[in-house]
Order: sequence, then structure tokens, then C-alpha cells
Amino acid sequence: MKKITVIGGGTGTFVVLTGLKVHPLDLSVIVSMMDSGGSTGRLRDQLGVLPPGDIRQCLLALSEAPLLWRRLFLYRFDSGDFYGHNFGNIFISALEKVSSDYNEVIKNASYILKTKGQVIPVTLEKTHLCAEYEDGQIIKGEANIDSNPEKNQRIKKAFLDPLVDSNPKATAAIRESDYIIIGPGDLYTSIVPVLLTKNIRESLVSSPAKIIYILNLMTKLGQTNNYQAKDHLEDLSRYLGRTPDIVVANDGKIPGDILEWYLSHHEKPVVNNLDSRNFPGKLIIGDVIDTASFKKEKSDKLTRSILRHSPAKLAGLIAHAISL
Amino acid sequence: MKKITVIGGGTGTFVVLTGLKVHPLDLSVIVSMMDSGGSTGRLRDQLGVLPPGDIRQCLLALSEAPLLWRRLFLYRFDSGDFYGHNFGNIFISALEKVSSDYNEVIKNASYILKTKGQVIPVTLEKTHLCAEYEDGQIIKGEANIDSNPEKNQRIKKAFLDPLVDSNPKATAAIRESDYIIIGPGDLYTSIVPVLLTKNIRESLVSSPAKIIYILNLMTKLGQTNNYQAKDHLEDLSRYLGRTPDIVVANDGKIPGDILEWYLSHHEKPVVNNLDSRNFPGKLIIGDVIDTASFKKEKSDKLTRSILRHSPAKLAGLIAHAISL
Repeated sequence: MKKITVIGGGTGTFVVLTGLKVHPLDLSVIVSMMDSGGSTGRLRDQLGVLPPGDIRQCLLALSEAPLLWRRLFLYRFDSGDFYGHNFGNIFISALEKVSSDYNEVIKNASYILKTKGQVIPVTLEKTHLCAEYEDGQIIKGEANIDSNPEKNQRIKKAFLDPLVDSNPKATAAIRESDYIIIGPGDLYTSIVPVLLTKNIRESLVSSPAKIIYILNLMTKLGQTNNYQAKDHLEDLSRYLGRTPDIVVANDGKIPGDILEWYLSHHEKPVVNNLDSRNFPGKLIIGDVIDTASFKKEKSDKLTRSILRHSPAKLAGLIAHAISL
Repeated sequence: MKKITVIGGGTGTFVVLTGLKVHPLDLSVIVSMMDSGGSTGRLRDQLGVLPPGDIRQCLLALSEAPLLWRRLFLYRFDSGDFYGHNFGNIFISALEKVSSDYNEVIKNASYILKTKGQVIPVTLEKTHLCAEYEDGQIIKGEANIDSNPEKNQRIKKAFLDPLVDSNPKATAAIRESDYIIIGPGDLYTSIVPVLLTKNIRESLVSSPAKIIYILNLMTKLGQTNNYQAKDHLEDLSRYLGRTPDIVVANDGKIPGDILEWYLSHHEKPVVNNLDSRNFPGKLIIGDVIDTASFKKEKSDKLTRSILRHSPAKLAGLIAHAISL
């Protein structure tokens, strides 16, 4: 059975895992532990726990538990002391409080959610993502970087403060994988944080695994303004220490009303300007659009974009690429 | 296997269940659903859920899950948005929000906690306990009655507003039991509310089961001021519709420092003034004191008394009484 490791943590990673789960694969996911926004941010600040949000999403994506448990972990309180908090985040935070270490948290949460595959926090230490912009300004905190849309400059350098050790399970998964899938996801707030963790880059450089990069559908204001495919690939390769072997890009049509919503938020489709002259690897192009729009819960304080990759279309292209 | 049904919901019921769990018995517990204080009261008010606190305690008492799950369900947040809330209460409340009915809540919470025996909410409808005092004043809400220590009068009449139907599982358990155990627990805020629920009294009156009443160790300010054993028995019998067949009273010595704490709170030991002249049933007297003092968590906003029945001693006396 082919061993696949997915890197990320946000909704893009959820989509990839959901799509791949139904295939006969040995799946792992290395999860960013640098989220600091929304319910997760409040739990970090108030309880001193590691950020539970991305872990929860990955556990849920791989869950084979009855629907009720998945509904429970997705449930967001819409009133009272818990307003805006997600039950799954509360569960993982409380579990951390009564567990002897975070491996026990993952083990027990995986047990209850009957998770297929391995969910691996990239680090078990507390840290924050920092971004240095072209003008020299430094912003600390994933949520602050994520919600910095006025910033019309490129991120010159991203780093962790403090620099933390990686989870040995993460480097082991990278070493033992046949394929590593990166993206889709916010380049600087979901993907790069994982790559910045000590020893991850070295493991990726020396891993025999092929790296598959799934390009985002849209640019992200404040992070990848006006980026085309090549810009994404260049930035990623810099933090990765190597160039991905396979890139997946979309050529499906984005519905007009959704496109307008994005344009009014100063975000636009990522144009694919890669070809055999500027990218030596394998380029896979296909329609990967999930046209079902995303239903936002009223108590979810995060602003979420509404366009997604389709789990099934994406997994289909990946399965083809790795000759499943 | 003898079928035993315990009636109550508070810490006294937790003790009885904990003690009986290790014996080969077919155990059920009918749980009061009228609690309105502390974390439970806030969850009722803010989320519109049924009160989870007593359900949680009974599930935990009967739990055979690994220690970690029991620790998790007992965990009380000591900071942030969740300050003072118990994780188990949050779990049950969120489960109610995503379940189609409350039986599903109990079923799934029992599954995760590997509960031995059946936990039965006395009603699945929302209601509040009311107390009418000798001076005609009526106080509504279990927590308001519980925290009404200035009231130096007897409760003339307790009732539910609204009067609610009982859970058919509760009346079935009463009908099919060999023994029904009532107490220990606050007479008017933990035990009487169950008996006030529609059809419960009728089921108890017509049940072939023997009723065992476990007397409290101490009087309760505002509820059973200066009550002796006979006063407790008389009040209980009135709401029960029959006289218990067996009464268990303590003759163990209460440590001096604990006694002083109670006296300073205007509460004193329940004197046993029952004998063959005023009680036709079987009177069991023994040392049932648990001298280990109760460690109060700093974020637990409820004031809890520190003296408890010993689960093992109590279960031993009960086992003897029912010829186990």
C-alpha cells in the first residue's frame, strides 16, 4: 500500500484527506501547530493549550466514526459562554489538560473518531509564526498575518518564534513516504509554518518521496497578492529546499458569482503560467472545482472563502498521478 | 441477578452507585432533571439544554472506561471563557444539540464512558422545582431553593412548574426492580424532584420492590433544619406514597474538625430517633462514614459539604440487607 503524507492543516488539507480517505492508501498528515485565530486562538490564550483547530479538522477528515460523532466534533456553540467555540476544539483542549502528553491526546481523539491514518502535529511545542515584509515590518501571530489585508507587500521572510523542534513522528513519516502532498492552503499561514519547524526541511530534502504540490485556486490577500502559479512554486520551493516533482493546477471554470465575490475582496484566480520551459516536473491540469458553495455558520467568527477544491476530483487526479 | 434502581442524582447517588458497581447487580439509576445551579444552570440558561450535571455524575459513577476518560469528564476549566464549567457537562450539552432525542444522548455518552447499568433521566422535558414555605412564600428553581439558607421554615409543599411527564424507562425500571434505593442526598433538591414527576409516585406505590432509604449524615440548612431521622422519613413517605421498607442510618463517629465546620454552617448530624415503636420496617445501623475529606477544586463555584458516605461501607450494608 502506497504511503502518502499530506502537509498542511487548513480546509485545503481537509479536502485532500477527505478525497484520499476512500482510496487504499497508508495516509498520514503532518499538521501545522501555529494557528492562533478564532476559537483556537482563544483556547491557546486562555488555557495555554496547543492549537486544536487544525488537528480537529484532520482527525475529522480521516474519521470513520458514525455521523453523530462527526457532527458533534463539528458543532459550534451559537450562544452563551461558549459562543463561537467549536466542540471539537474544546474536547481536544480538555483532553490535553488531563493527558500526560500530546501523543496521548492524539491517540485518544483518534480512537473516539475512528481515524483512518495517522494525524501528526508537526511540533509538540508552543510557537508563533512571524512574517517580515519587504518594508521591514514584522508581524507576529498566524491570525495577525492572516488578517492583514492592507499589507500590499510580499512577505520577505517567514520564521517561527521560538524555533521549535519537530515531532519525531513527523520526520519519520516524511522519510518513509512514497509521496508527499502539499496544499492546497494558504501558503504562508498553513503550509510554510510546517516547513519552518526544525528538521522538517532537511527531512524533505533527503526524502526519496515525490512531492506533489496542489496549487491554490485563488490568490490570498496580504499573502499572495497577484501571485501566479510560478510565484507560488518559487516561494514554496525556497522553504521546501527542493522543487516539487508534480504540480496540480485547475482549469475548471469558476462560477461568475463566486468570482465576483473574490474580486470584490481583492482576490483572483491563480493563473497557471507553468510549462515545460519553466518547470521540469510533471504538470497535471484538470477541473478540480467544487461548485457547491460553502455554508457559513452564523457563530463562526472567521471569514472563510467560499470556493473549494472538490475532494473527489482532486483525489482522482492524484490517484492517476501516482498510478493507483 | 437482582435488579436495583437508585433514585437521586447528586453526590450521594454517585457514592451509592460507586459502591454498588463492583457487586453483581442489574443496576439502574433514575436521575433528577431539575438541577439549575453552577455550570449546569448556566448551560440550561444559555443553551436551552436539559440539565447535564446529575446525568454526568451518574454516568461517571457507573463508568468502566479507562481512567483518562473519567478524568476528562470530571475536568473543570479553571480559566477563560469556560471558567467553572465542567467538561462532562459541555460534552453532554453539545451531544444534545446534535442528537435527535435525549435517549440518543444517554446512549452515546454511555457508550464512550462504558457505563455499567442504565442511566435514566426521570423526565425528558424541561421543568423547574418550586418550594412553598410555611409563610406562603414560593421559591422557584432548584439552585434558589438550595441556596436559601436564611429560610428558617419548613418546606410546606414542593412541586414542579410545569408538571412534566416521566420517562417511560423510569416507570418501567421502578416496576421491574427488586429493590429501590433512595438517598443519601438533599431531600428537597435531589430526591423529591424525582418523586414529583408524573406517574413516578404511582409506580413506586404499586411496585413490588422493597424500598431502601439511606438517611443523610447531616441536616441541610434551609431544607431540613433540625430534622431528625423520623422527620426525614415522614417527609419522604409523604412524597413517596408509602413508607420505605428498610432504613440505613449511621452510627459512625464524625471527626471533630468536620463536625465543627458543619456546626459553623448551622448544620448538624441527623440523630436517629427511629426504633421498632415508630418504624415498622427494618432498621440497619452501621458506620458509613467516609473520613477522607473532599478536595474542592478552585474553579468549582458550588459550595460543597465535605462529609460523605463511604461507597464501600454503604454498599456492604446494602448487600447484607438484600442478602447478596
